[in-house]
This record gives sequence, structure tokens and C-alpha cells, in this order.
Amino acid sequence: MQQKMLTGKDVAEHNNKDSCWIILHGKAYDVTEFLSKHPGGPTAIFKYAGKDATEGFEPIHPPEILDEHLDRSKHLGKVDMSTVTAEEKPFDPEEESRQQRIASKPSLAQCFNLHDFESVAKQVMKKIAWGYYSSGADDEITLRENHSAYHKIWFRPRVLVDVEEVNSSTSMLGSKCSVPFYVTATALGKLGDPEGEVVLTRAAGRHGVIQMIPTLSSCSFDEIVDAKKGDQVQWLQLYVNKDREITKRIVQHAEGRGCKGLFITVDAPQLGRREKDIRTKFNGAASDVQKNNPDTINRSQGVARAISGFIDPSLSWKDIPYFKSITKMPIVLKGVQRVEDVLKAIEYGIPAVVLSNHGGRQLDTAPSAIEILAEVMPELRRRNLHDRIEVYIDGGVRRATDIIKALCLGAKGVGIGRPFLYAMSAYGEQGVVHAMQLLKDEFEMGMRLVGAKSVDELGPELVDARGLGAHTVPTPVDSLSSDVYDRLVLPPFAVKAKL
Amino acid sequence: MQQKMLTGKDVAEHNNKDSCWIILHGKAYDVTEFLSKHPGGPTAIFKYAGKDATEGFEPIHPPEILDEHLDRSKHLGKVDMSTVTAEEKPFDPEEESRQQRIASKPSLAQCFNLHDFESVAKQVMKKIAWGYYSSGADDEITLRENHSAYHKIWFRPRVLVDVEEVNSSTSMLGSKCSVPFYVTATALGKLGDPEGEVVLTRAAGRHGVIQMIPTLSSCSFDEIVDAKKGDQVQWLQLYVNKDREITKRIVQHAEGRGCKGLFITVDAPQLGRREKDIRTKFNGAASDVQKNNPDTINRSQGVARAISGFIDPSLSWKDIPYFKSITKMPIVLKGVQRVEDVLKAIEYGIPAVVLSNHGGRQLDTAPSAIEILAEVMPELRRRNLHDRIEVYIDGGVRRATDIIKALCLGAKGVGIGRPFLYAMSAYGEQGVVHAMQLLKDEFEMGMRLVGAKSVDELGPELVDARGLGAHTVPTPVDSLSSDVYDRLVLPPFAVKAKL
Amino acid sequence: MQQKMLTGKDVAEHNNKDSCWIILHGKAYDVTEFLSKHPGGPTAIFKYAGKDATEGFEPIHPPEILDEHLDRSKHLGKVDMSTVTAEEKPFDPEEESRQQRIASKPSLAQCFNLHDFESVAKQVMKKIAWGYYSSGADDEITLRENHSAYHKIWFRPRVLVDVEEVNSSTSMLGSKCSVPFYVTATALGKLGDPEGEVVLTRAAGRHGVIQMIPTLSSCSFDEIVDAKKGDQVQWLQLYVNKDREITKRIVQHAEGRGCKGLFITVDAPQLGRREKDIRTKFNGAASDVQKNNPDTINRSQGVARAISGFIDPSLSWKDIPYFKSITKMPIVLKGVQRVEDVLKAIEYGIPAVVLSNHGGRQLDTAPSAIEILAEVMPELRRRNLHDRIEVYIDGGVRRATDIIKALCLGAKGVGIGRPFLYAMSAYGEQGVVHAMQLLKDEFEMGMRLVGAKSVDELGPELVDARGLGAHTVPTPVDSLSSDVYDRLVLPPFAVKAKL
Amino acid sequence: MQQKMLTGKDVAEHNNKDSCWIILHGKAYDVTEFLSKHPGGPTAIFKYAGKDATEGFEPIHPPEILDEHLDRSKHLGKVDMSTVTAEEKPFDPEEESRQQRIASKPSLAQCFNLHDFESVAKQVMKKIAWGYYSSGADDEITLRENHSAYHKIWFRPRVLVDVEEVNSSTSMLGSKCSVPFYVTATALGKLGDPEGEVVLTRAAGRHGVIQMIPTLSSCSFDEIVDAKKGDQVQWLQLYVNKDREITKRIVQHAEGRGCKGLFITVDAPQLGRREKDIRTKFNGAASDVQKNNPDTINRSQGVARAISGFIDPSLSWKDIPYFKSITKMPIVLKGVQRVEDVLKAIEYGIPAVVLSNHGGRQLDTAPSAIEILAEVMPELRRRNLHDRIEVYIDGGVRRATDIIKALCLGAKGVGIGRPFLYAMSAYGEQGVVHAMQLLKDEFEMGMRLVGAKSVDELGPELVDARGLGAHTVPTPVDSLSSDVYDRLVLPPFAVKAKL
Repeated sequence: MQQKMLTGKDVAEHNNKDSCWIILHGKAYDVTEFLSKHPGGPTAIFKYAGKDATEGFEPIHPPEILDEHLDRSKHLGKVDMSTVTAEEKPFDPEEESRQQRIASKPSLAQCFNLHDFESVAKQVMKKIAWGYYSSGADDEITLRENHSAYHKIWFRPRVLVDVEEVNSSTSMLGSKCSVPFYVTATALGKLGDPEGEVVLTRAAGRHGVIQMIPTLSSCSFDEIVDAKKGDQVQWLQLYVNKDREITKRIVQHAEGRGCKGLFITVDAPQLGRREKDIRTKFNGAASDVQKNNPDTINRSQGVARAISGFIDPSLSWKDIPYFKSITKMPIVLKGVQRVEDVLKAIEYGIPAVVLSNHGGRQLDTAPSAIEILAEVMPELRRRNLHDRIEVYIDGGVRRATDIIKALCLGAKGVGIGRPFLYAMSAYGEQGVVHAMQLLKDEFEMGMRLVGAKSVDELGPELVDARGLGAHTVPTPVDSLSSDVYDRLVLPPFAVKAKL
Repeated sequence: MQQKMLTGKDVAEHNNKDSCWIILHGKAYDVTEFLSKHPGGPTAIFKYAGKDATEGFEPIHPPEILDEHLDRSKHLGKVDMSTVTAEEKPFDPEEESRQQRIASKPSLAQCFNLHDFESVAKQVMKKIAWGYYSSGADDEITLRENHSAYHKIWFRPRVLVDVEEVNSSTSMLGSKCSVPFYVTATALGKLGDPEGEVVLTRAAGRHGVIQMIPTLSSCSFDEIVDAKKGDQVQWLQLYVNKDREITKRIVQHAEGRGCKGLFITVDAPQLGRREKDIRTKFNGAASDVQKNNPDTINRSQGVARAISGFIDPSLSWKDIPYFKSITKMPIVLKGVQRVEDVLKAIEYGIPAVVLSNHGGRQLDTAPSAIEILAEVMPELRRRNLHDRIEVYIDGGVRRATDIIKALCLGAKGVGIGRPFLYAMSAYGEQGVVHAMQLLKDEFEMGMRLVGAKSVDELGPELVDARGLGAHTVPTPVDSLSSDVYDRLVLPPFAVKAKL
Repeated sequence: MQQKMLTGKDVAEHNNKDSCWIILHGKAYDVTEFLSKHPGGPTAIFKYAGKDATEGFEPIHPPEILDEHLDRSKHLGKVDMSTVTAEEKPFDPEEESRQQRIASKPSLAQCFNLHDFESVAKQVMKKIAWGYYSSGADDEITLRENHSAYHKIWFRPRVLVDVEEVNSSTSMLGSKCSVPFYVTATALGKLGDPEGEVVLTRAAGRHGVIQMIPTLSSCSFDEIVDAKKGDQVQWLQLYVNKDREITKRIVQHAEGRGCKGLFITVDAPQLGRREKDIRTKFNGAASDVQKNNPDTINRSQGVARAISGFIDPSLSWKDIPYFKSITKMPIVLKGVQRVEDVLKAIEYGIPAVVLSNHGGRQLDTAPSAIEILAEVMPELRRRNLHDRIEVYIDGGVRRATDIIKALCLGAKGVGIGRPFLYAMSAYGEQGVVHAMQLLKDEFEMGMRLVGAKSVDELGPELVDARGLGAHTVPTPVDSLSSDVYDRLVLPPFAVKAKL
Repeated sequence: MQQKMLTGKDVAEHNNKDSCWIILHGKAYDVTEFLSKHPGGPTAIFKYAGKDATEGFEPIHPPEILDEHLDRSKHLGKVDMSTVTAEEKPFDPEEESRQQRIASKPSLAQCFNLHDFESVAKQVMKKIAWGYYSSGADDEITLRENHSAYHKIWFRPRVLVDVEEVNSSTSMLGSKCSVPFYVTATALGKLGDPEGEVVLTRAAGRHGVIQMIPTLSSCSFDEIVDAKKGDQVQWLQLYVNKDREITKRIVQHAEGRGCKGLFITVDAPQLGRREKDIRTKFNGAASDVQKNNPDTINRSQGVARAISGFIDPSLSWKDIPYFKSITKMPIVLKGVQRVEDVLKAIEYGIPAVVLSNHGGRQLDTAPSAIEILAEVMPELRRRNLHDRIEVYIDGGVRRATDIIKALCLGAKGVGIGRPFLYAMSAYGEQGVVHAMQLLKDEFEMGMRLVGAKSVDELGPELVDARGLGAHTVPTPVDSLSSDVYDRLVLPPFAVKAKL
């Protein structure tokens, strides 16, 4: 059926709650009824009522999502974009100075470690994108603990071992890979790079690194799979939908396209509240009465409750057999946080778990995965169950020495998320390739210096992890006493040179 | 008896120690004899000798206090206020900039957690009010430890639990309430809001939260009770007066007006010395000789000794039976700080205690209530006494995760004081309503993420509290070594952009 | 014998190493031979060769010292001071700004605790005096640990104890005193106040506090004893001289004048090197070749070796019987630092020890006295020796709660040094009186809040001292990770007010 | 054979990869083939193609290296330097301000401890030299831990011991020395002083201190040996070359020249990556496309792999007998890091080990030597092996108290590296002499204060080392709570003086 081309004016008339149209990629859609069902809340759409919403839509959603979630009858057809008045963007000094920072950013060759990418990304990303990627739950204590926990573990290196040849390769869920880390699933890749998650796919392919594809990707699942090369390995991360049919469709499609593992997220019955992210989004300009009315404040719970429309908070152990019935992929629980639940997973015949606190984005003061690992593995060994399950961890890894510590303590592999997003956001695919290379170089060096030629030579005797259980909070400092203390000084240089 | 209207001039003549009159709310009073008995010291009144003292009086005292403490014969009758010369206030730059801060304060919608209210309140409150609310004893180490102790406790969350429906309600002293926190008693509410404690009453009513009414309220007790709605629950906090008849009258009046619990403060035989508060009040302008004479310095002990006129420092265990004899309300000891005293309370038939260090305002380096709780509950369980007494705690709670930790460790409920005062001081009733809503949202989220559907599912197996007993004071840093250390840097941006 | 008055010119001629005369208090002395014997090194004297040295001499030495150490034949008689040309002092901007600080210093009434005096003193004292008083050994780690160790101890307060009447008095070495602290010996009082140590004597007298008189006082011993009132108690601190006859004379004179205790310093076989002090004294103006010649640099060892001329580094246990033979005063060892030496002291029949690290001025990373105390007392109790010896401690006491903690752990009393020097340096005698009063008020409050009516009710069950043994040095922070972390922020105020 | 003098122009023509000549010390060399074999990478040489490379070459290499590594046929003969155009150096503001700092640097007499030298050196050294000396691996956590670990150890001093005469001398590997520290091997001495390592030799000679000669010295081995006086003792540090003949030649030459010990470095199968050093060297000016191409970035592994051409990563226990066969010098393993390897060394008949992490330059979060020592010695004593091996440690020593602690815990001696380099870089030989003297003075004082007359009186009973095993990483601070805390203040001075 041939449809008449719509004009900007046609759309502009439908700019209210009774009839709300928007334009996306040159096509118009009637979202009047959908407004109240939008997981991100109605406001996010309604501000584009009668207008072109493409720019706001694109980094958040894969393109096929409209086909999946909006009835065909609401697809109104093409719009003659020449008739659509472009929004005039107000001058934004923050954006201008960001552009200057982009122009003067360090070269890729000046990035020597994963922190460096994060530092560049922080300065060249849009605030809203940085806010989404970098934020954690509540006071972000777990977010930071994830990395600092590694500094509680110290090495006990062996010397005089022949380490001329070091082999970094290993296997995960039966697939070979060149190094014991994988790209873990993170949402909304297009916030960092216009091409989105496929950038990570390509870099992973170049390095022989496994990638976990996120449910909430901004590229479509198929785009991401299409981007892989040869026998490159991919896994699927899954948020379980209340509608099990949707879930079944996703899982079976992934299996059909060759995914080698199904990672079910179990630590997010409700998506965490990340205040840094919320504060970034807050539009400070508006100042109406409602802003001070507690009943009308658009509380975080709105988003959280809405989103629970597609993440099922009732997911429980009783659902495991169902997943086994719909796929032959190995089922992995992602987000396990205590030894009791690892034991339960073994009972349920689960072949692998990821110890994870979701990058510090869910429950604040949940412990780091590396700490949980140090509790889990000795218990498994005690019960002679350590060969019954593969244990992965993620969160806070920034150095290859972190990976080596995890492997010494019994992890099969380590997931890395944000660092690759930051490398991508700062330098695109080349950034990710370089980040992975740095990590590989560090890994080889670390293996040599700790005295191991291959990953199976890494064991608990090479680390001192006694510090892991300690959650030290220093006694509050007595301000008066420390303020009055006259600090020692180093020898002063003469104010005037002795010429 | 019809009294002649007094003039400003009549009052102004009585401006000395031999005859001291003041005006309050349009009436004159002879306070000559009362000067020396004033718990806050004579100076606080005498500076108004012969003048209108209403503005200084109001935030500190409930209106009926004159009737209770000043003999009828000293009530001199109405004053023709048109004849009273208004004090000319000197220009105060600090007050002017405070008014500017009030005009530019963040909207309520920008407050995402309890810290945010404190931050706004600090900037919009009068210094003297902020000083009174925020101060703690000595070096304020306990004040800060109260919150930071919660960071010594980490979660051990359960996953794959069906948490679609979360029930936050519980009961305290037999009364139902919507959440396991209550508004604890804090003095001088009118310093924060001209309406005083009734603001808290109304907000608590809207949320189904229990309120504890303070002895030192700036609204009268009856005003606070009158402000409650329906079956809203209130408790009475009591400073025991040396004159037991006064105490008896207060207690029985409260019981008559429906209070459901009597919380006797036991941690304040003498009111703590809060130097931040004292320093704020210090009038730097005066510079007479006496300021340097140790004998005439108005030492804190003056206030402390004076106030001991109405707080009885001799209160002891032997007085418990007396309280039982004058009321049927459950008697709760507020301020217990060691397991031995909890055991003693059980012996004395006390149904509940509040573990508390009085918000860090009494004895510095007294431990946090949450630490005491972690010592008390295992001992009670060991002796099979844990069902014989309800244990509450207060101090330092800022996040719902703090509340969940307390409940996991065995608390029946948690008192919150300052945060609601700050919400009130910054945004009035709406602020308190919003603060409570934020806490409720956080609580529901926290319950889901820790894997519990109702408060009775919270237990010690969900937390790792091994860190609680540790009072870590780092070894003083070696300044020279740390000053000379050349800190690593992140990659530098070019000074000039590569255009 | 009538001596002819000398003139300035007469003296000025003797300005070289072959004949070196100086003027002190209007009299001339021949110090040619004495130069090399001066404990403080020859330079300190020689810079006054041929001139008036009174100003440099006075704060360091008691007036009678010349009589004791310089042969009568070297006393050259009076000088007609009108003939002596006054040194013209160069304009000193630092001194001018110090005078301004003195003029604007806070009133005594603004000092609310011992830290406050230190803060004022630091700003109003001459740099060289502040450097001498405030400095510690090496990196001053022990200096600071001395106070911060108290924050490793937390209270376990008792409630519902009748504390209406609190009795702070106690006895030390058999003498009654109003509070369980004493003024410990500190050198060179005139650096802080022109009157010197007698200021402390008077203040101590007003408060019923015991004073320990230092060997290195700048007032003479007799001046200090003369300043006491009534039955005021004084002790003598003793540096043992190589020449035992000098020591004997000092000890027996002190006993004769009523001293009630002999405190022999045992932690200073060599006086510690305090770099802050040395750096302060360093005269930056000079810039000769010798400053860079390691052989001619006036190394600390010079002073240290010189001073060992009058402090005997060979002092050992074998000398104890000698001291017993020359005095009936109780002999106390000041500076004991390990339990083994306390046990040895008991064997030697010593009735008391002071656990002390000499205010952090001798061996750096020697532990705090309070930590040693917590090791000593349980061992003494285990051996049933706790009644055989009185144990005192000093160092780092700033709050009455510190004193209470020490008494709970078994100390008989607590010495306080620097804080009273600072109070004296900032406000003279009134400062010291006020400092003591503050401490007394704090003490009474602390007793009430911990639940004790008298010092004998203080015991180990009132404190949690488990943290004392821990010497925590945090793992060095990973600068990159912490620099890149984007700290959470509080709600921002609008830049422009909403007017 | 008489060679014709070359001209600058002759050399300048050979400025490409096909023919690359450079000038060194007035002579030309053909390095075309050598470029790809240069351990430091080809770029470092190629930038001097056709030019005079002396200035860049000199601080890095000993003069005889050309004879050893470049075939005679490539030695092209003398160059008439008057025909060589001097490179015009661009104006360098950083260099200018460094010259000003040199002119105004503190006199040697203002340096009171080892930190002081480091502080001066940091400001007067060239950035690239400072970067090389001061850098450590990765996050430099081990680098800093090396010193801060000493603050985890506290003294338990003895008093009343006769310490009039203190004897600091001891013996190491059978050689007498005046103090229990030695100058450990560090590379590239000419970066700090134009004369290089011989400066350290002379200073060590003056003080009776043993020196360990580095493989990577910038003076030649023979120059360093020639600089010793009398029976001054030297040891050789050895990086084992893949070509064992080269190694054999070096070892036997050293033995022939009188070296008394062979220290084989075992902690460097690959040289660590020091990012501070790399970042310093990065030439920010260049900005070509390659800087952003991950394939062409001159990655650290390039240097690391190249250098492995002369450091043998296959070195292992099986090589020990070979070393025994080629020398009679005692063989010492430098860089042992765990007790298991000390035990193994004993099995292999090794007479001594150095516990070391290579100054924090190899594996980050490897523990400090002092911590390993505290693990090793009790185990040796338990097995009665403590007399079978001498144990040395190095890393982080800055105070004589650090040395005393090490000796108390069982070390035979302590190596000091960077501090003497810094003293040399700041003040040349006089600096090193003074640094050693300061350390000796500190040592004597420390011995007196800890109560020991000679090093054999130092034992574990004099220290409390319980803190050593703890690797404390504080829980991340809750920024909001700490930002909102209103810090206590000290009494304010009046803005305007009371004149």
C-alpha cells in the first residue's frame, strides 16, 4: 500500500496527550497510547510530541525496537523531512568547551593503562553519557570497592622459574580464547560511540576475546552478531521478561545465531537508583511549583517500577528448569553474591556462575566479586565441588595483575565492562584494540614476574589474600588536633636565587 | 480583674538586676527573681531587660512555659505595643547572603537522599540554629562514627528470590507502622521552621510513621498532639525532673492524650558540651577585660549545672518502679549503651530499650548504636532472652540500607532525628514528606536487592558485620615521605587544541 | 672588694677565640675557656663575643647557672650599660606580623579546649620558641600517635547510676590532689612567658594540681619552689649528671625544700634529634662554602655529644641503689616503655613508674604510653603485682576523656606538659588557670556520662581497648583510580537567585 | 693504520636506514645493522642519524660498550669536530627554570634526613633523569609500601642500659663494614651526576660502606673498581645474559678485580613497565596519525622484548651449579620474595639472599622486603636453618630506625639505593658523604634509644611487628556525608587587630 508522504505540519498538530505523534528516522509514529507504557517514563517521549525525536531516541534504542513494541497500525509512514523545521539548538558553552577538549585530547599513544582511557572519556563524553556509564548505586561505595578490593591482595611471587615462553590462552564454557578476560555486557553503547556495540565486537574479534551481548544494547542483536568474524565467540546476557514468550524468542534466536552461552542476570529484580545519573539528567532550568511538591516529583521509583514491566522481579530458582527446556546453551547465573547461592546453582545443575554486583550499580555496600570468590572457592574445595562449576567474576578490574589475582583465587575468567566502553568513547575501535593490547602486555609481564608460564600454574599459594575480609572504616579524624599539627617541611629553596 | 495597659516606657524603666521586666507576645513579665533560676543562664534573659524579648524567646520555648514556671503575680498584663520602640537591627551581611541563598536554593526535586537535605539546610538556616542542630560532643568523633559505622557492615544478598511484592510494614511497642523507622525526639523545632514540631507530626501522619514527642519541644505538648490525624501513633520522650511531681504530671497528661510509649532518656545526667554550638553563640564583638579572666568566663558548666536543675542526675535503677506506678504506658530506656544494661533492663521488666548515644551529643568516643546492637543481640540469643525485649537504635541513619542492616542485626526499629529536622528546615512540611518518601523508596529497593519480601525475612545471615568492632586509627602519615612522592598523573590534554 | 665599672668598649675588645667576654644582666664574664664546654655548642655563645648576650641567654638558662658553672675568677664585674651600644635590630616582617596577630588574638573566653590554646600559641609565639616546644623526633609519628592512640579506645558507658555528686580527687605518691592529672616537667619555660615556670606553679597552686619541676627549667629551682603556696605539692624531674656529686646536691636540695618525689628520666641517654626545631633555628641568610662541606656542617651529633657531658648515657639499673642511698623521696622512673622494665622496677623496689616516650621527642615509632599501659596492667594483675607499683603515663592527653580512659586502664595519674605551656604562652597565668578549669569541667562531665562517681569506680570494663595494639598503615592509594573517580556532589544552588 | 679525519658532512650523508652513521666522543660509527639490535629500540639511536649522539649516549652507557658490542669494522675513525654543526637547542623554559632552582637550592647543611635529598633532587634534576630514578611499576603501590611498611613496626625500647659506647660495625659475607647498610646496585648513575657511579664509590670508601656495582652502570666496571681506596669492599650485581660466555667473562673479570660477592638478580626475567618514566619520555610535540594507530604505537613490550635479548628470562634453579662452577665468590640471589624460595636457596647451597622487590620497579603489589623478612626468619628459626644463610633486604629504607627494625627482625644488612642517587644528584659526592653521615648519626642515636650497644643485641623482642601482615585498604569514603559534615574550627583571630 502506497502511503502519502506526511509533512512536518501534519505531525506538529499531534503534540498533546490526546494525540501524540513523533518522527523517527524520517517516519512518523502515533505514540499516544504507548506513552504510559514507555519503560523510561512518558516525559522522555512527550517532550518530542509533534517533533523529530531521532536524536534522543538513537543512542538509547536499537532500531528494530519500534517493530517489536509498537503495533503496525501506529506506523504512520514517511515524512517529507524538508518540511520539518529543524529545532534551533541554544548555544551551549559546556558543549563548546567539550568540543575544544576533543580537539586537544591526548593521542592514543599517551594511554598507558585502562585508567587513562577513563580519564580521557570523562572529558570528551557528553555529560549525560558519562553520567550513565560511570554512575553507581547510592554512595557508590561498592562501585569503588570493586577496584580497591584488589589492593587488599598481595603477591607471593616465585623466582628462578623459566618464563621465556608465556601462554595466556585459556577456555571458557568450552570455548578457547586468547586471554582469560571477556567483554561483559553493558547497555547503551551508542552513548559512547555512534556505531555502538559493534565496535566492541570488532575489537574483540581482532584479539580473540569473547564478547557478551547485552539485552539492552543500542545496536540490534543481529547487527552485533553480523559484526563478528570467523569463529569469534559471543554469549548472550539476558534480562528475563515477564512475558516468557518474548524471552523464549530472544533466547532461541541467539542460540540459532550461534551464541555459546546464556548469562541470566539475577541481581536486578529492580534496576538500581544511580544518583549521579539522575542528577546529571535533572533539568535545572525549569522552576515550577511542581518541583517542590513531593507528590508530583518524578521520583526514581517511576522509572524503576515501569522498567519492572519487562524485567521480572518474581524470577526465582523455580524458573531454572524452564530455561533448560528452551535452550541447549549452557545457562550461567550472572550476579550471584554468596556461597550459599553458588551451592544452590550446583544443585540446580548450573554449569557456571558470574560473581558480580552489577558494577556497583545495584545494592550499595554489596561486597566485591573478588571478595566473594575468596569465600566461595575454599568452600567448594572443602566439599570437593570445585570441578562441578566454572566461576567467573566481574567488576573493578583495571590491571592484568587484578586478573592474575582472580585466577590465583580460582576464577575461570574475568569480565571487563566499563574500561572498554571508555576506550571506545574516547578513541573508537582503535581505542578498544589498544586497551586490550595493553592488558595483554600487562598480563604477559605479570605472569613472568609472578613466576607462571600458563594460567593453570596460577594458584592460591601465589597470593596473600588475608586482607580481603576486612572492611576498614577509619575512626573519624579529630579535626582540631590535626588542624593544629604543624606539619614537617622539606628544605626550602631560596626565594631569590644565589646568582 | 481589668488591668491597665502598660506602655513601652513603663517596661523600659525596669531594666536592671533589681527590677527586670521583659515583654513577650505583647505582655509584660517581672523576671527579676527568675533570672537566677533560668536554666539557660541569666544573661540570655537580661539582655532583653526592659525590652521586647519575643523574637529570642519563641524558637526556644513552648508558649505555655511561662504559665508553668512563673508565678501568676509576675504576669504584669498587656503592653500597648505601639508605644514600644522597635529595636533597630544593624545591617548584617551574613543575613543578607543567607537570604540570597534561600532565593537560589535547589528545588525539592533536586534532593535525592537525606544528605541532600542536610546540605541545603546548612546553607539556608541561621547559623545559630544550624549550630544547635548539627553539633556534637567534644571532637564530634562519635557524631560521625554513628553514620560511618554502617559502612563497616556489608551485605550478603540472596538472589533468585521472588520479590515482586515487598511489604515494608512492621509494628513497634504493639503499634502498627508502615515502615521500620520512627521520628525520634529532638529539641527546639522552631529553630528550623516557625511552626515547629507540628510540621513533623503532619508529615509523619501522611506516611504512617510514628513520632516521639520531645520534652524540650518548642511547640507545646498539646499542640503536637492536636496536630495528629486519626489513629496516628505518638510516644513521649522524657527528661526526668528533680521534682517528681512535675514529671508525674507530664507523664500522666501524655498517657491521657493517647501516647503509646514512654521513652525515658538515661544518657543525659548532664547535658553534653557541644563546642560548635558554643562557638557559634559566642559574641565576638564584645572585648572587655572579663573575657580574659578565667573566673568570670561564662563557662559551659554554668549552663550544664543550671540545667541539672530540671534534669535529675541522680536518676537510677531504683527509680524504675516509681515510673511503673504512675503509668500504664510501656516504659522504654532511651540511651542504653552496653549489653550489661540491657540485661539489667530485662531484670527490671522493661519491655524495650533504645541503644543510643544521643546523636553523638553526650559522651565523645561512645560507640555507635549499631555496634552495640551487634554485641547485644548475640548475647540475648545466647541467653534466650531475645524475645523478652524490643531493641531500637538511633543515630547516623541516612540510607534505607542502614535500616536494613540494623534490622538484620536484630533491631525492631530505627529512630531518625536530624535528617527530618534538616528536611523541615530546608523545605518545611513538603521537605519532610519527600524525605520520608525517598527513604521508603530506598527501603523497598533495598529489600528487593538483598532478597527479602518482608522485614521478618531479614536476619544476620544477610550481613557481614565482622568489621564493626574495629576502631581503626591509621598511623600518622610521614609527611616528608608523602610530600616528596611524585604522584602518577593521567594523560594530559594539549594546552592548545589541535585545530 | 670594690671593682671598677667596665665599659662597653672594654668588653668589645675581647671578641675572639683567644679572649672572649660577654655581658649578661649588666655584668661581664670571661667565657674563653668555657666556650668548648658549653652543652649547646660554642657557636651559640661566640656570636655574642664582646657584646651583650642577655636576650639570647635569658629564656634558656636559670639565672644562677653562671654561679654554678663558671668559676668566680671569670666573673669580671659590672658594666656601665650606658656605654654599651645597643644592637640595632634589622626590620623583621615576620615579627611585625606576629605583633599584629598578638593584637588580634582570640579572647581567653573563646578557648573551649586544650587544642584551642595550642592553636593560639602557634600563632603568637616566636618561631624559635614554637619550634622548640612543638617538635618531635624524626617524622613525628610518635608525637602524633600519642594523641591519636586515645581514639582507638572507646567507652562502654553505664547508665542509670546516681551521679549527682562527682568526686574528682585522688592521691599520687601519697599526696592528695584535686584531679588525677599533674603538670609534667618541660624545659625552657621562659620561651613561652617571660616569667617562666613559676607561672605554672601559681596556676597549679590555684587548682590543687601537682607540679613536676624540670632539671632544665629557665627559672631557678628555688624560684619555682618559692612560688608555691601552702601545702602545694611539687616533685623533681632529674637528668642524671655524669658527675654524681652534682646530682646528689640537686636531689638533696630538692628534698630539703620539700619535694615529694624524685622522677629520674630514663628515656634520654642522648637527647633526641628534632628536625622541626633544627630547621627553625637554621640561619638561612649565611651561604658560605662550609654549608656544603659535610665535614664542617654543625651536625646534630655535636650537640648530642656535648650534652651527654651532663646527661649520663651510662646510667643503668646498677645505679638505682645509689639513688636510694641519697634520698628518702620516692624514686620514680620516668620513660619506661615495656612491661619487662616495669617488672624489673618492681624487683628494684621502685614504688612508681611513668610510662612515657618523652612526648615523642626521643625515639620515633616508640609506642604511646596508653598502649604500653594496656599491655602492662593485665600482666601486673596476672602476677598479682598491680598493688606493688603506681603507674603513671604522659603524652598526648588533650581531653578529660583521655584521662578517664587512662584511669580505666589502670593509670594512677596522667602527666600533661605541652598543653599548659601553650596556654601559658598564649595567655600567661590566666591561660593556664583556664586550661585547668576546662579540663576539670570536662572531667566531671565525662565521669557523669561514663557512669562513675569517683575515680576508684573507673575500671577496664568501661572501655573497649581492643583497637590499641593495631598500627594500621593504609595501603598506598592508587592515584590514577582515585583521580579519575567522579565524586558525587550535593544539590547545587542556582548561580543566579530566583528573585 | 693511519685514518683520514672524517668531516661532519661525511657523516651527515649517512642519515637513513640504509646507511646510518653517528658520532660519539669525536669518533664516527656505522650503526646501520646495529639499529634493530639496540636493546633500547632503534628510535633512540635513529634520531641521531648523521649527527653527534654523545649527549644522549653518555648518561646511559659506559664508554667501553661500543668496543664490546660493535664490530671493529664499524668503527669509522675520528671526526674533525670543528666541521660538525652544533645542533641549535630550542629555548626550553622548563630547563631555564630548572637552572634557577639549581641556583637557589638549599645548602647541604639544610638537609637533615634522606627525604630532604630526594626533595632537592626532584627539583634540580632533569625531568627524564628524575623519571627514570623515581618511577615504579604500574600504580607504584609497592614502591610506596616499601617505605610505609616500616611504620607498621613499632619499638619496644629497653631503658637503663649503659649505652655510653655504641658499636655500629658488623660484617657482611665475611667482610667487615662500619655500619649494617650497603650501597645497592642502581643503573645509569650519570643521569644524576656527570661522573656517575664512581661518586658513590668514593663516598662509600670514606665511610667504610660496601658498594654493589651494577651491571647497567654508566661508568665502566673498571672505572668503578679503580675508584676504590685500600681494602674497600665491592660486590657485583649481575643480570644474566642469554649468552653465558658474556656472563662468564663479566663474573670472572669481577672476581679477578677483587669483588667479594656475586649478586644475581632473580626478580627481573623481564624489565618492569614504569609508566611515570614512559610518560616523561613521551614526546608530546609530535602528533602524527601513527600516534593513534594501535599497531604502530611503540609499545613498552618492544623495549621489554628487546632487552630480553640480554637478560635471560629462562634463568632458573637449574643454572645455579653453573655459576658455582665459574666463580669462587659467594653467590647471592637478589630479589627473592617468599619463604619457599629461601628454603630452596639453602638446598642449593646458596650462602645469602636479598629479599627485594627491585625497589617497586617490577611487580606491583609485591610485598615489601621487610614484610617477607618477618615471615622468613621465624620459619628459618623453626627449622633451625637461621645460621645457614645470611638474609639481606632492600627497598624503602629512609631512616636508621628502619635499619634497626630490619636487624631486629633478623636481617644481616640493608641495601640502600635511590637515597644515595638523590644525594649525589643534588650535591654530588659531598651529598652522598653527608647522607651516609646522617644515617650513621641516626643509627647511633637509635641504638642508644632502643637500648642496644651493638648490632648483635638487636632482636625480635625489641619490636612489635604484628601489624606487618595487614594490608589495609579503607572502605571508600561516602563523599556526600563527608562533604556535608561541618568541620570543627579553632578559635578565630579578629580580622581587625584590637589596636
